[in-house]
Amino acid sequence: MHPPSDPRQAEAPLPHPRPRAPEDPRLPPPRPDAGSSGRGPGPSPPPLRVLVAPDSFKGSLTAPEAASAMARGVRRGWPGAAVVALPLADGGEGTAAALVQATGGRWFVRRVTGPLGEPVDARWALLGDGRTAVIEMAAASGLLLVPPDRRRPLEATTFGTGELIRDALDHGCRRLLVAIGGSATTDGGTGMLAALGARFLDAAGAPLPPGGGPLRRLARIDLGGLDPRLAETAIEVACDVDNPLTGPRGAARVYAPQKGATPEQVEILEAGLVRLADVAARTLGRDLRDEPGAGAAGGLGFALLAFLGARLRPGAELVMDAVGFDRHLEWADLVLTGEGRTDAQTLAGKLVARVADRCRARGRPVVVISGAVDPAVEPALRQRGVAALLAATPAPMPPDQAMARAAVHLEAAATTALRLLHLGTRFGPGPRPRGG
Amino acid sequence: MHPPSDPRQAEAPLPHPRPRAPEDPRLPPPRPDAGSSGRGPGPSPPPLRVLVAPDSFKGSLTAPEAASAMARGVRRGWPGAAVVALPLADGGEGTAAALVQATGGRWFVRRVTGPLGEPVDARWALLGDGRTAVIEMAAASGLLLVPPDRRRPLEATTFGTGELIRDALDHGCRRLLVAIGGSATTDGGTGMLAALGARFLDAAGAPLPPGGGPLRRLARIDLGGLDPRLAETAIEVACDVDNPLTGPRGAARVYAPQKGATPEQVEILEAGLVRLADVAARTLGRDLRDEPGAGAAGGLGFALLAFLGARLRPGAELVMDAVGFDRHLEWADLVLTGEGRTDAQTLAGKLVARVADRCRARGRPVVVISGAVDPAVEPALRQRGVAALLAATPAPMPPDQAMARAAVHLEAAATTALRLLHLGTRFGPGPRPRGG
Repeated sequence: MHPPSDPRQAEAPLPHPRPRAPEDPRLPPPRPDAGSSGRGPGPSPPPLRVLVAPDSFKGSLTAPEAASAMARGVRRGWPGAAVVALPLADGGEGTAAALVQATGGRWFVRRVTGPLGEPVDARWALLGDGRTAVIEMAAASGLLLVPPDRRRPLEATTFGTGELIRDALDHGCRRLLVAIGGSATTDGGTGMLAALGARFLDAAGAPLPPGGGPLRRLARIDLGGLDPRLAETAIEVACDVDNPLTGPRGAARVYAPQKGATPEQVEILEAGLVRLADVAARTLGRDLRDEPGAGAAGGLGFALLAFLGARLRPGAELVMDAVGFDRHLEWADLVLTGEGRTDAQTLAGKLVARVADRCRARGRPVVVISGAVDPAVEPALRQRGVAALLAATPAPMPPDQAMARAAVHLEAAATTALRLLHLGTRFGPGPRPRGG
Repeated sequence: MHPPSDPRQAEAPLPHPRPRAPEDPRLPPPRPDAGSSGRGPGPSPPPLRVLVAPDSFKGSLTAPEAASAMARGVRRGWPGAAVVALPLADGGEGTAAALVQATGGRWFVRRVTGPLGEPVDARWALLGDGRTAVIEMAAASGLLLVPPDRRRPLEATTFGTGELIRDALDHGCRRLLVAIGGSATTDGGTGMLAALGARFLDAAGAPLPPGGGPLRRLARIDLGGLDPRLAETAIEVACDVDNPLTGPRGAARVYAPQKGATPEQVEILEAGLVRLADVAARTLGRDLRDEPGAGAAGGLGFALLAFLGARLRPGAELVMDAVGFDRHLEWADLVLTGEGRTDAQTLAGKLVARVADRCRARGRPVVVISGAVDPAVEPALRQRGVAALLAATPAPMPPDQAMARAAVHLEAAATTALRLLHLGTRFGPGPRPRGG
């Protein structure tokens, strides 16, 4: 496991609060007898340390926007609270942006090869530690870069993703976080590897053209030109699917139809991936085609696993580690998280549930505030350690109206939650203050 | 001021919890050093005493239904909490029902004279103290009893309301709470007084026919036959308007058009009320036509004030006193209230704001949970002592859907509020529990 990056060492161009800042409330500690000092409302409770760590609110707020709104609410609801805003992501859209904001990172833009060979301006992120790159494959090789009427699933290539990786290596990055959702490709990651110096050759020794279609003619893989810096680079891949590379649950048969492949093309791609797996096994001395996640992103998962020694992990876990979630958790008295909608899908491993799991493991209470809540999941979330589950919606209203004012609603709900927590301090052990 | 009724002495056919019940958590008191006993989560906080005192949620829940839902949520969110459910009302529709439920009272039904002389089965309530009657004038003399095409504003009479009062006197009641909203009448309360033995006579000494129209011919009021039990009876009237009996803001000119009066009929009614005020002043030796509320319910307010010595009070205040709100408040650590919608109107003296005022006066925290909330009023409610303001709505949805599931939503919101309060006990003065 890689050590998490340390946001405290990072340049922070954004208002990114740090744990143990000068206002750290733990020094001096409260007097141990402060709770039994007699009549009246007693001493004010010490400042609360709150870690605000939401997912994005899909359709309304990015994770940084949600974290800011929650943080404002916390400060309003519990004046003097120490707040760390740590926007999170699940490995999908917005992951790099959340990591940039959480760690004080920055962006690089590079012109690379798009999925169909056309030039594309794609960005990647350098995190606040100055050595970790975040690369979203969709930025260079994504389905959204191809108009629906121009999809060519047999030719689509991940070459541009490899170019982004090379650019990150050129900038000195030796730790790569790769988000692989939304691909246009089914090339088994061969384009990416080609951009990094590998050669995929036919029986005559000629390089294959780009895409998954030509892979059926693969005879040999030449790794001699592979960028030597990759050997000293740790790669983590945000991957929430467990599909193998080939077979009925493989990359071609499950995902290629979404990328425009006809049934005939699907079988061509399947044959190509099988061939790739065969030749790779011979080349590498091990067969990883059935590894969970090998079939992600048209087989890019396989290439990262087999050729670059990458580690595939759930996106939320990768993100939490990248921003030092556990270290922030150690500091916090309380965690707030949330998402656009909390329902049964949340329980199936979405970020909010994973945040809850980590909070429970460390004995830290977590409160979930989401745009919408299905009350039916509350018991299950309680069992996972969620202390309370709130909706931000202040009144019955159409979803578009709720989304348009999501930040205001979220701030208000966080304010209310913290006010209730603050009020609760009156009802702890010891004599109760009674006005009169 | 009358002593509030005591629900603890009442028969309680409904699950009406009592303060200081056997499960009263105050004995034995928590040890004064319980807050500083060392490491770990420490001792459980003592059971919380929660007074649940909502208004109705108009369109979805009666006040008793809302109180039940909130009480379930409290018990779920803070196991072991001691809960008293005290449904309230504002003097309008549902007031008697809330008082019956809150005090363990019961209903009587009596056939009386309707607004246009037809028989009407109207009910009145005997509260749990066995001596206080609640009479809603609308039950006997209400506008809803008259089809729109049959309104006869000159003839409509409050006689049936007087019959209900007489029935209450027959049952031994010497304290009457009268709710006067929704009248069909503009008779200055003369019908009510006639049912109780007063006589309104023309210049020839003949009794006037019913209604406000004939009052222009009033020459003399004979109070000799007035029921003598009224002299020993205290009457409180729930009245939230301050209109005088006569003049441009009087009962005829402001309210008679809503009751079907044409402009000509309005002036006939105005002349009748002026005549009534003149003769009443001569008869009683004092002129109360300009008293605030004299113009309420077509001048019924005037008759109650001038002839029966009634006290007019805001409905919410009357209800709170009738159910012993202040005594329950003394017992409580925390109050929950709420209504269908909390917005700017709430601040203008609605029940929830009055509950807040009393809580602040006694130093008791109050949390508002409403079906819908306008976040803009939160600062003003905070200034009035509201600790936190929550909406019950768990997600964006159409109002009818929210109303259909209002009880479920309200219970869930109360659960969440109490869970947050309970969680807050960890963050009071003294060393904080830190899991690990």
